[in-house]
Amino acid sequence: MEKIRVAIVGYGNIGKFAVEAVNEAPDMELVGVVRRPSSLSKPIPPELNNITVVSDIDELENVDVALISMPSRLVEETAVQLLNKGISTVDSFDIHSKIVDLRNNLNLIAQDNNSVAIISSGWDPGSDSMIRGIMEFMAPRGVTDTNFGPGMSMGHSVAVKAIEGVVDALSVTIPLGTGIHRRMVYIQIEPESNFDQIKENILKDPYFVNDETHVKLVPNVKDLIDVGHGVLMERKGVSGSTHNQLLKYEMRINNPALTSQIMVASARACLKQNPGSYTLIEIPIIDLIYGDREELIHKLV
Amino acid sequence: MEKIRVAIVGYGNIGKFAVEAVNEAPDMELVGVVRRPSSLSKPIPPELNNITVVSDIDELENVDVALISMPSRLVEETAVQLLNKGISTVDSFDIHSKIVDLRNNLNLIAQDNNSVAIISSGWDPGSDSMIRGIMEFMAPRGVTDTNFGPGMSMGHSVAVKAIEGVVDALSVTIPLGTGIHRRMVYIQIEPESNFDQIKENILKDPYFVNDETHVKLVPNVKDLIDVGHGVLMERKGVSGSTHNQLLKYEMRINNPALTSQIMVASARACLKQNPGSYTLIEIPIIDLIYGDREELIHKLV
Repeated sequence: MEKIRVAIVGYGNIGKFAVEAVNEAPDMELVGVVRRPSSLSKPIPPELNNITVVSDIDELENVDVALISMPSRLVEETAVQLLNKGISTVDSFDIHSKIVDLRNNLNLIAQDNNSVAIISSGWDPGSDSMIRGIMEFMAPRGVTDTNFGPGMSMGHSVAVKAIEGVVDALSVTIPLGTGIHRRMVYIQIEPESNFDQIKENILKDPYFVNDETHVKLVPNVKDLIDVGHGVLMERKGVSGSTHNQLLKYEMRINNPALTSQIMVASARACLKQNPGSYTLIEIPIIDLIYGDREELIHKLV
Repeated sequence: MEKIRVAIVGYGNIGKFAVEAVNEAPDMELVGVVRRPSSLSKPIPPELNNITVVSDIDELENVDVALISMPSRLVEETAVQLLNKGISTVDSFDIHSKIVDLRNNLNLIAQDNNSVAIISSGWDPGSDSMIRGIMEFMAPRGVTDTNFGPGMSMGHSVAVKAIEGVVDALSVTIPLGTGIHRRMVYIQIEPESNFDQIKENILKDPYFVNDETHVKLVPNVKDLIDVGHGVLMERKGVSGSTHNQLLKYEMRINNPALTSQIMVASARACLKQNPGSYTLIEIPIIDLIYGDREELIHKLV
C-alpha cells in the first residue's frame, strides 16, 4: 500500500500532537514539518530530531496533504498558497461566522488545482458539527445546546496572545448551561503596557464579544495550563410528530490531541473527495476512517 | 421547489410513523401507502382516510423513493423489485451480520436501474453507526460499547412473532453494561401449541443466539408495550498517542418515530447520491438534512 505523504505546517500546540497522530496512522508517512524561518535558528525540540524540518514546503517532495497547524487567522492565506501548488490542505479554522466564506473562497482554488481542502476539521467546528447534523435529521424540530468546557480554548487563547502588550494568555471556557458560556481570561502583560487598554481590546475581539468575559492578571500563565477540555451537547426535539426525543453527546478529552487526530482523519479523506473545499458534514464518515471499506461497514454499521 | 414523491411500502409500526414524518417534511409529498392485499379487505385505519392506499406500487405515479417499512427478512426481495422499477429505496434492515451482503446485492441492481438504495437506515444500524464511525476516527485505538435499552426491540419482537405458535410477542432489551444485554421475551401462544418447543425455537433464532434470553408466557402482550427505547454508547480510546479520551452518546426516544424519521432523512439523501447502494456512514451528513446547503453549514458547522 502506498502511504499518504503528509506535511505539518506550523509547529505549535496542534503541530506537536499532529506529529504523533501522523506517526500512529498506519496509512500515512510524515514527510516533514514546516516551521517559520525564525524558529529554525533556535534549538530544535528533541522530539523533532529524526524528522525533516524545513522553512518552506517546496523543500519537501511529493506532499499529498498539508495539515495547517496555525492560528485561524493565518489559515486562508496559507491554504491558498498550498492549494495553488496542488497540495491538499486540512485546517481547524474555528471562527464559526466565517466558515462559509472560507469554504467558498478555497473551493474554486482547489478545483482549479486538482486539490482538496477540508476546513474547520477539529472538534468544534468539526466532529461536534457532525453530531449536531446527525441530531438535526433525527429530530428536525427542536433545540440543540452545545455546552463547552470547563477547559482551555486554544483558539481564544491564541487570539488573546495576538493582542499588543500580552506576553502570555489562557482563555478558559466555563459552561453555564443552555449553550451560554463564561470566558475566564488569564494574562501576563508587558511591564510598560496598560492593563485596562488590553482588557478593552480583549472584550471587543470577535472571539469574546458575545460572551460574559472576565480578564485577570496573573504572575505566571503557564502554571494554570491544562489542555483537557469537554463538551456536553443536548437536543430535545421532535421526530415526525412525536415529541420528547432526547439526544445527548458528551466528551472529556485532551484538546490538541483530539484536534490533530481529526485533522489526520481528514487528511485521509482528502484523497477520496473530488477537487474542492469541504466541511466535515459534507464528507462521508467512512472516508475518515482507516481500513477496508467492507470490513468497516461490517464492524461499525 | 419540486417535492420528493415518497411512497410507504408496508404499514406496521414503522409505516404508521413514516406517514407522519413524510407529512412533516417540507420537501416531501406522500404519494401513497402500499399495503398487503389482505389488509385492504379490512376496515381502513382512520388516519389513512385522506391518503391513497394501494396494494401494488404500480398504482402510484412517479414515485421517487419508497420507504420499505417491513420486517428485515422481507427487505431484500422488496428492494430488488422496487430498484428494478427505477424507484429508490430506503430500509431499516437490522440484521447486522448480513448488512454487507445486502448492500452488495442491491448495489449492482441500483446502478443498472439508475436508482439508489440506502440500507439499514434506522438508529441501530443507522444513526448509532454514524456515531460509532465518528468516535472511531476521533480515537482510533480503544473500545466502543453500545448499550441498548431498556426498551422494546421491534426487530426482535417481529422475529418472535414469525415463529410458529406465537400469537403475540414483545422482546425487551436490558443493558447489562459493556455492550452485554439480556433479552426479556414475553409471548402469548396458540392454545394447542407447545411452549417448550416455541421457547427453544426463540433461543436458537439468530436474533437471540448470542444473548442471555428469558422467555415468559403472559396473558396479554399488549399490556406490556411501550415503544420508548434508548442507547448509551461509550468509547474510551487513544488520539495519536494520548490516552484516556472519553466519548459518550446517549439517547432516550420513541423508537418507531425515530426510525421512520431517519428513513425520511435518507429518502432525501437518495436524490443526492450516484446510483448504487449505501449505508449511512457512506453518505455526507448534510445530504440527510432539509435546507439550503450554505445555511446548514453556517448553522451546524
